[in-house]
Amino acid sequence: MATLGDIGVSAAFNVLTAIAFLLAFAFLRLQPINDRVYFPKWYLRGMRDNPITSGAAVQKFVNLDARSYLKFLNWMPAALKMPQDELINHAGLDSVVYLRIYLIGLKIFVPITVLAFAVLVPVNWTNNALEGTTVVHSNIDNLSISNVPYGSKRFIAHVAMAYAITFWTCYVLLKEYQIIAKLRLRFLASEKRRPDQFTVLVRNIPQDPDESISELTEHFFLVNHPDHYLRHQVVYNANKLSDLVEKKKKMQNWLDYYRLKFERNPSERPTTKTGFLGCFGSKVDAIDYYKSEIEKIGKEEAEERKKVMKDPKSVVPAAFVSFRSRWGAAVCAQTQQTSNPTVWLTEWAPEPRDVYWNNLSIPFVSLTVRRLIIAVAFFFLNFFYVIPIAFVQSLANLEGIEKALPFLKPLVELPLIKSFIQGFLPGIALKIFLIVLPMILMFMSKFEGLISHSSLERRSASKYYIFLFFNVFLGSVITGSALEQLKTYIHTSANEIPKIIGMSIPMKATFFITYVMVDGWTGIAGEILRVKPLIFYHIKNFFLVKTEKDREEAMDPGSICFDSCEPRIQLYFLLGLVYAAVTPFLLPFILVFFGFAYVVYRHQIINVYNQQYESGAQFWPSVHGRIITALIISQLLLLGLLSTKGFEESTPVLLVLPVLTFWFFKYCKNRYEPAFVRNPLQEAMRKDTLERAREPNFDLKTYLAGSYLHPVFKASDDDDKYSAMDDDGWMDEEVIVPTKRHSRRTTPAQSKYDGSDGLSSVPEKS
Amino acid sequence: MATLGDIGVSAAFNVLTAIAFLLAFAFLRLQPINDRVYFPKWYLRGMRDNPITSGAAVQKFVNLDARSYLKFLNWMPAALKMPQDELINHAGLDSVVYLRIYLIGLKIFVPITVLAFAVLVPVNWTNNALEGTTVVHSNIDNLSISNVPYGSKRFIAHVAMAYAITFWTCYVLLKEYQIIAKLRLRFLASEKRRPDQFTVLVRNIPQDPDESISELTEHFFLVNHPDHYLRHQVVYNANKLSDLVEKKKKMQNWLDYYRLKFERNPSERPTTKTGFLGCFGSKVDAIDYYKSEIEKIGKEEAEERKKVMKDPKSVVPAAFVSFRSRWGAAVCAQTQQTSNPTVWLTEWAPEPRDVYWNNLSIPFVSLTVRRLIIAVAFFFLNFFYVIPIAFVQSLANLEGIEKALPFLKPLVELPLIKSFIQGFLPGIALKIFLIVLPMILMFMSKFEGLISHSSLERRSASKYYIFLFFNVFLGSVITGSALEQLKTYIHTSANEIPKIIGMSIPMKATFFITYVMVDGWTGIAGEILRVKPLIFYHIKNFFLVKTEKDREEAMDPGSICFDSCEPRIQLYFLLGLVYAAVTPFLLPFILVFFGFAYVVYRHQIINVYNQQYESGAQFWPSVHGRIITALIISQLLLLGLLSTKGFEESTPVLLVLPVLTFWFFKYCKNRYEPAFVRNPLQEAMRKDTLERAREPNFDLKTYLAGSYLHPVFKASDDDDKYSAMDDDGWMDEEVIVPTKRHSRRTTPAQSKYDGSDGLSSVPEKS
Repeated sequence: MATLGDIGVSAAFNVLTAIAFLLAFAFLRLQPINDRVYFPKWYLRGMRDNPITSGAAVQKFVNLDARSYLKFLNWMPAALKMPQDELINHAGLDSVVYLRIYLIGLKIFVPITVLAFAVLVPVNWTNNALEGTTVVHSNIDNLSISNVPYGSKRFIAHVAMAYAITFWTCYVLLKEYQIIAKLRLRFLASEKRRPDQFTVLVRNIPQDPDESISELTEHFFLVNHPDHYLRHQVVYNANKLSDLVEKKKKMQNWLDYYRLKFERNPSERPTTKTGFLGCFGSKVDAIDYYKSEIEKIGKEEAEERKKVMKDPKSVVPAAFVSFRSRWGAAVCAQTQQTSNPTVWLTEWAPEPRDVYWNNLSIPFVSLTVRRLIIAVAFFFLNFFYVIPIAFVQSLANLEGIEKALPFLKPLVELPLIKSFIQGFLPGIALKIFLIVLPMILMFMSKFEGLISHSSLERRSASKYYIFLFFNVFLGSVITGSALEQLKTYIHTSANEIPKIIGMSIPMKATFFITYVMVDGWTGIAGEILRVKPLIFYHIKNFFLVKTEKDREEAMDPGSICFDSCEPRIQLYFLLGLVYAAVTPFLLPFILVFFGFAYVVYRHQIINVYNQQYESGAQFWPSVHGRIITALIISQLLLLGLLSTKGFEESTPVLLVLPVLTFWFFKYCKNRYEPAFVRNPLQEAMRKDTLERAREPNFDLKTYLAGSYLHPVFKASDDDDKYSAMDDDGWMDEEVIVPTKRHSRRTTPAQSKYDGSDGLSSVPEKS
Repeated sequence: MATLGDIGVSAAFNVLTAIAFLLAFAFLRLQPINDRVYFPKWYLRGMRDNPITSGAAVQKFVNLDARSYLKFLNWMPAALKMPQDELINHAGLDSVVYLRIYLIGLKIFVPITVLAFAVLVPVNWTNNALEGTTVVHSNIDNLSISNVPYGSKRFIAHVAMAYAITFWTCYVLLKEYQIIAKLRLRFLASEKRRPDQFTVLVRNIPQDPDESISELTEHFFLVNHPDHYLRHQVVYNANKLSDLVEKKKKMQNWLDYYRLKFERNPSERPTTKTGFLGCFGSKVDAIDYYKSEIEKIGKEEAEERKKVMKDPKSVVPAAFVSFRSRWGAAVCAQTQQTSNPTVWLTEWAPEPRDVYWNNLSIPFVSLTVRRLIIAVAFFFLNFFYVIPIAFVQSLANLEGIEKALPFLKPLVELPLIKSFIQGFLPGIALKIFLIVLPMILMFMSKFEGLISHSSLERRSASKYYIFLFFNVFLGSVITGSALEQLKTYIHTSANEIPKIIGMSIPMKATFFITYVMVDGWTGIAGEILRVKPLIFYHIKNFFLVKTEKDREEAMDPGSICFDSCEPRIQLYFLLGLVYAAVTPFLLPFILVFFGFAYVVYRHQIINVYNQQYESGAQFWPSVHGRIITALIISQLLLLGLLSTKGFEESTPVLLVLPVLTFWFFKYCKNRYEPAFVRNPLQEAMRKDTLERAREPNFDLKTYLAGSYLHPVFKASDDDDKYSAMDDDGWMDEEVIVPTKRHSRRTTPAQSKYDGSDGLSSVPEKS
């Protein structure tokens, strides 16, 4: 058990590492050469010039102004300065609400920390239950509930504290739900005209022997929404085509690379090999080779493009149907169309950037089967993932390798390599698994058939939270893999489980303090340094970049990785709530995490991240739900702990809390969640009326044309060539496109969202 | 443990009782004097004349035709003859689908019984595990799983049987869901024009300082549904008024009674006492007294009626909003109106007869609080109800009575009364509780704030099922009150609970066989006899009936009591599924129950019951869900049982079943349930178009006027006086009513639903 001193050492080490990261960041961000790594957001918004284009030669790359190094923390107040409304304009509502999660952490835990230190610490400290015993304990335990003797009446203070925590947390959550719901509504109300406001995604369009999907859709909506239907856009199965486009782009990159190489060293024409990874096969002239390859793929692509557009089989049974008014779209999205609830499924269309095109054509029955498969698979992943890893670990030792690959025997017998394998290999399987885990979870969510990137991220986040809860939190508390836990849960009675876990809680406080420092403090400091994008940017910059546009593409602003970052924050909520009444000494560490992370992420959101989509804080209900879950878990664990401490009288008193908390959750869900899911008619009508008064002659049909076309048809390799298609005719884009683009230029209502990356976004402003 | 002989005796006894009931029924139903007790449905449909009005004097009351007594079972084939479509026309879809529940029982259990007797009985019989042991066992156990020795491979047969049961049950359920969904859709499609097709119930209308609720509603829907809004009907808080009407009616009954008494014995004017129950207070002339009382209440009523209509405070914040088309109503019912999801809540209006008026004005927050209170209260009712009953029982003994009411001491010391109290009193508290339980549950559901009788019945049924499951099924299996069970569940590990229950299952087979015979066979035979309505009808007939109309009112056709009958059927599904793989000997008894009950209820539905509302089989999804629950429980119990029998290998194989069954449940829910909840736009549009083509000039506004008025305004004590109100003006009913009634008479589209009872129905045809 760690003493106060141990924790001090660990804290010092972590603080120093964090400071080192911050210093490195402060230094690197001032170098003009890194400007695009640390301030990409401003480039994307067109509000920052390239520092390389002006100034002295050296100053283009290195900052020589000594004074600027002195204020190495001045990014912090700068990050905090931007007011919330401006931040919403700058980065979108998703980012702002994401930041609020850290703020909520502070709002919940600052008063709780003060209260706990004012009340619980004295109550715990003035006992001496631990002194006489032989239990190994540290001075931290003197501050915790462990120091209160068995059956003491002082536990009333802890019960009262549990009540205070519950009511305060629920109060903060309620206020936040109100604020965020209001923010969302204001955000939606203030939005400019956008295609998704008028559009509904229709899936599972039934087969008809006489009509094509496009005709059927048009007829269906003309009949059933006669006053509101405007137009529709069929969805093409363009997966193969986008593969080709992707492949062509890669070839183009290689071509650029070799051309640059040839320019720098014109004496020697670069060569490459045609085989795997350019390492095997016959040697050829690289530039010629890639040129011919690109030509070949280009032809293939053109053919595929033609085929997709002509072949009715490449139309999937889904369509984006647009309406004359927001009211009409809101009505269609919320109602059931036919008596068979598995066909003509309508839902609000995600914004075009947010659509996950591959999943649009999955039929209804397949969706339910997929959900079952993923539920079972995730159950096994969560509880049984240790088995394959243990298996790999058992293989990944010296004897295993020598057996499997005998020809490597002389190599692995070398002392250096031998010790490396013995020391490192067993852990590496687990490490690799943990790194790829978010990808596995995202793959699972994709397999489930969700149709927007935002919903995919939300689903993955739930899965990741469950994994972290069982494998990190419970795994550390009762020290065992989830598989062993599963056995415990099955073989232990319902009242014993909280006892077993609750009993271990105080003993693991020091472990979690260290965890908070390593993962929270140092991890966040590492986030701001952006090591990976920094390296990749410079590599790309050196090998590929010829033009400004290339440099723009070499930037990797990234975005908030909601699917893996949010569950990690939730872990801190869980730790804070669980330990608040048990070992309040942990709380300050969590406070530091929330405060520090808030500043860092605010900085990143202002200067770096570029969100790929805007869901209008649709993730908030699940964040809320997870904090409530953490609260209920903390109540149950305290209940279990106190009943092992000879204070069973508290059980009925504490049992009230989870019931009330769950009711509070249901109340919030009914009261506020619809604002995040459904589209009120009143708002739609208000916007329709306003707009009709302002622009009575606006040509909505032209405005909407092509907005829900698969991106591969909109932005092929060179961005200027459009091949938009309209449902009314196949190849009339020559007529449609100029009109459309003209109308956009003259329309005052400009979308404020940047189309930043070529393929997955809608270049509305191009 | 009962032997085959014991069961034979019990069966003989129950069969004889049932036959006695049936004979009594056959005799009584042939007497013309009972015609209105056993065939009220035909009277209500106007298809049967009063037998008293014609024929010889004696034959009016007693059937003297000897031949008709010989064919005492001929009602059975008669009950089965009516084809399903005619039955739907005759009694409504609710009744037909209710009957199908018994049919489903037969469909599920006939093949399972055959299979079990062909496979499991030989497998069980050809062992002798029980012979050598000292365990008390009967020859029934030789047919059950108990006879298979520990660890035998023969258990594979039982596992295979579990699979067969699961797949067959799911198959039947799937087919039934399809059939019933189709029936419902056809029923809805074939319905004539009805007010609820055009009407939406709006609740939680916000307060507005400047406008009345009526004005606000009109403005809101004129703005947000401009093309579809037609009219609205505010809801009055008429609870006090309907109390007065009820009271007046009672007084009228007494007046009639005394007048009749005076007519029969004109020499003596009847007197009554003014105090409690006519037993205390001063003696007065009864006829004069009730006349003056009625006059007094009549004045009060008129005043209250005026007040309700004039006072804006008596308008509750709810309204029935009608639309020009079914499409408009379907849209409004399914969409969210404003950004605040707690105001302007819209839902499809229940048909006028089905509205539960008292709950229309409950605000949103209050609703969620009420739900929490009822959830907690029901938990305590379910698990702790034994405590107050034990308390009452402890009081209800001789000493307790003598102590509490010492003046009764000489009375209770009499030997006869003493033995009566000692033998009967302890049980009576429990008996009374069980009789009033459905009423308690219905009260709970009403307190929860549901707004239609049909949903109240569905909610009460769920509660009753849970109660029966814990207190009857599990209470009998592990012999203990639910409170003791609760302790077991908390203190036993999750894998032990199915073992404990599963182990006791085979031992309780004989008990449940007896239960099926007593509750199922004899109970159903008692149902057809209708003892209570028979007695009440004759009492009323003797004391109150003067006119044909009075006699009509004295009939009590009753209706299917879904809230208490359906959970009882579910108990048989549970028993059948649980015992199918364990003690197949129980199955034939359940088959007899389902078959017999089907015939009896079919007879009752054709000849007796008169449904108070028609929900279009909306209860089916919950019936389906409960059968699935029973199936999952049976799987878990078999799993527990087999793991105590030395066949733990089966656990993973059997665990697959509940997962698959649950998935099947989810699939059905997603696939079919919307057909029972939502209103597809396509159907609405189709009917709108048809109707518009057929009757282009139909005056819908006039048709709808007054259809959602509180019944107390429509049918006051004398049915001819209408006081309909329109939202456009307060007292213009003199203008509106004649128009409305005229238009109805000339409209070919007549509602097929009878307004049978004065107060709670809409006399559309009057």
